[in-house]
Amino acid sequence: MNAIEIIAKKRDGLKLTCHELEFFVNSFLKGRITDYQLTALLMAIYLNGMDLDETAWLTDVMLKSGEKVTFPIPQNIYVDKHSTGGIGDKVSLILSPLVASCGAKVPMLSGRGLGHTGGTLDKLESIPGFRTDLSINEFKDIVEIVGCVISGQTSQIAPADRIIYTLRHCSATVESVPLICASILSKKFAAGPKGFVFDIKCGNGAFMKTIDEAEKLAFFLIEVAKAMGKKVTALITDMNQPLGYSAGNILEVTESIEALMGKISPDLYNVVLELGAEMLHIAEIQKDRNKAISLLKEKLKKKSALAKFEEMVSKQGGDLTIFSNNTTVPKAPAIGTFKSINLLIISPRKFLSLYLMGTGSG
Amino acid sequence: MNAIEIIAKKRDGLKLTCHELEFFVNSFLKGRITDYQLTALLMAIYLNGMDLDETAWLTDVMLKSGEKVTFPIPQNIYVDKHSTGGIGDKVSLILSPLVASCGAKVPMLSGRGLGHTGGTLDKLESIPGFRTDLSINEFKDIVEIVGCVISGQTSQIAPADRIIYTLRHCSATVESVPLICASILSKKFAAGPKGFVFDIKCGNGAFMKTIDEAEKLAFFLIEVAKAMGKKVTALITDMNQPLGYSAGNILEVTESIEALMGKISPDLYNVVLELGAEMLHIAEIQKDRNKAISLLKEKLKKKSALAKFEEMVSKQGGDLTIFSNNTTVPKAPAIGTFKSINLLIISPRKFLSLYLMGTGSG
Repeated sequence: MNAIEIIAKKRDGLKLTCHELEFFVNSFLKGRITDYQLTALLMAIYLNGMDLDETAWLTDVMLKSGEKVTFPIPQNIYVDKHSTGGIGDKVSLILSPLVASCGAKVPMLSGRGLGHTGGTLDKLESIPGFRTDLSINEFKDIVEIVGCVISGQTSQIAPADRIIYTLRHCSATVESVPLICASILSKKFAAGPKGFVFDIKCGNGAFMKTIDEAEKLAFFLIEVAKAMGKKVTALITDMNQPLGYSAGNILEVTESIEALMGKISPDLYNVVLELGAEMLHIAEIQKDRNKAISLLKEKLKKKSALAKFEEMVSKQGGDLTIFSNNTTVPKAPAIGTFKSINLLIISPRKFLSLYLMGTGSG
Repeated sequence: MNAIEIIAKKRDGLKLTCHELEFFVNSFLKGRITDYQLTALLMAIYLNGMDLDETAWLTDVMLKSGEKVTFPIPQNIYVDKHSTGGIGDKVSLILSPLVASCGAKVPMLSGRGLGHTGGTLDKLESIPGFRTDLSINEFKDIVEIVGCVISGQTSQIAPADRIIYTLRHCSATVESVPLICASILSKKFAAGPKGFVFDIKCGNGAFMKTIDEAEKLAFFLIEVAKAMGKKVTALITDMNQPLGYSAGNILEVTESIEALMGKISPDLYNVVLELGAEMLHIAEIQKDRNKAISLLKEKLKKKSALAKFEEMVSKQGGDLTIFSNNTTVPKAPAIGTFKSINLLIISPRKFLSLYLMGTGSG
């Protein structure tokens, strides 16, 4: 078995074996396969695809390249959400503490801005002092104490994914469903939750432009995650308009705090409630969707979610003082007059439409 | 214009511009584009192809990456042959001095063994002292004095091709017709001849396994060379059996000397005469095929070609003493009992069938 033979096999449209993918990635990590061989394979994968088996094998190899967080029993209550990214997507900042306030535990590993989309970590880092570089032990401790934590991928978590992603970015091999799928799942699985809801953004502000593309990614994420023993579900949500009032790191933190205080735009509210209901279902806290939504609304109204958010920020070293009313944080402009700080797309906001697809498991 | 956009364009099956190919190769040579970006582009080219324009542009960029040999008027008499490689292919060793003995000048830049095939340089280097690392001036001097010269690609000649070829070899992107074509033509054109005959080997011992593949390569070579102002023709010759009696570096030199002395196997004889007739046609020495073949036969019979070979070897520092009858050089075994030294394929020899395709220009 050698690198050239494996590249040639995928180049010729053949299915790689688990052992070949393991050999390639592990040899690459040990420096025995070069980066220019990896990008040749990535381009062959981009153009000739990988099936569900290959994607699951690659996910597993990348997952095993690093450490894996484990949580105590009952593990069912550990649940996470992953968004494929869009304009103004500040859902994680609201959803994590909200679901935690309902009794679930949300150990969330988030990412940076990607292409034209903002990143949850970038947004949170506009809170003075907020740390997104938690060690695995800090990450575990905070989720146990608070119920939610949002941190970045450390060098301990799926290092293969980090390195491969950098090369994908530079070699025009990002937008490949199997590669996106393996990248997302390897790091998400490493963070330890038992179940996931995927928010597949779809539209001209998202990576998946069409419902077909979004469904393909949703299908891969659900099937691969199921094959790897996870409870998963996916929503395809509209990203033809920015989500909520604002786009831009500090503006979105401000909007999230306002949302947790009860002032939430209808589109953002809908997405948060639908994703939250899925998470409570997966965590086996409330399997009835209507009851789950009622519970989420109640926690939001009572400001339990806000309390969780403040507790999480505090534990992660953040200081929310500048977000109080007396300070000079730039405020999000009024609806319909978007002003983007970090992002390029400016668009009048329309009411968000939500597409719901079949869940992968229950 | 940047590397990622160019890779993405070819990845998406679009035609690259002359300017994009020039930018990519030149930026790569300057270290501004990485090797892992180049291999991603090479794989995209392998899978999505390049048309004749793109291939000619790439050839030109690679040619211009180094120096170009120029010869005095009349330039028509400078003619070269290129083989795509096969088992026991020692044609260059016989053909170059033979055609030179007819009045043409053959400035031949040859290559090393590639995959399962032997390389003319490797064969010649089994002659003690024989130098294949001539400078451009030595190369030009010897072809003027002797009429033929066979040397290797120096760092001055098409350096882009040398570097790209190494990466192709390691990234499973060798067997791409446009890439093969650009690689062959960039270095062959740099060596200065006005015209070429291509010997496209076809069969289970060649890189082109089928007539369709061989014709595609012949078509690309002829069309691109014509577009770049060269007189070209191509023969597709059988490589389902080894050519001649022997395979292996020193054995093939021995067989070539025997052939130049008049003891030549029928298959090798046919290929040498057909290619030689094409070269004499291109060089405008003898345009009538039958007369050209008679001339070649006569020069071989009179041992004029042997004299040219000995002169060339001597000028390139080689010593043929060990090939005299009194020494212990391993002799080629009898017909039908191949023994390969460097090569893997061992096969009973059948009479070679020659496929002749339409010439590109006249």
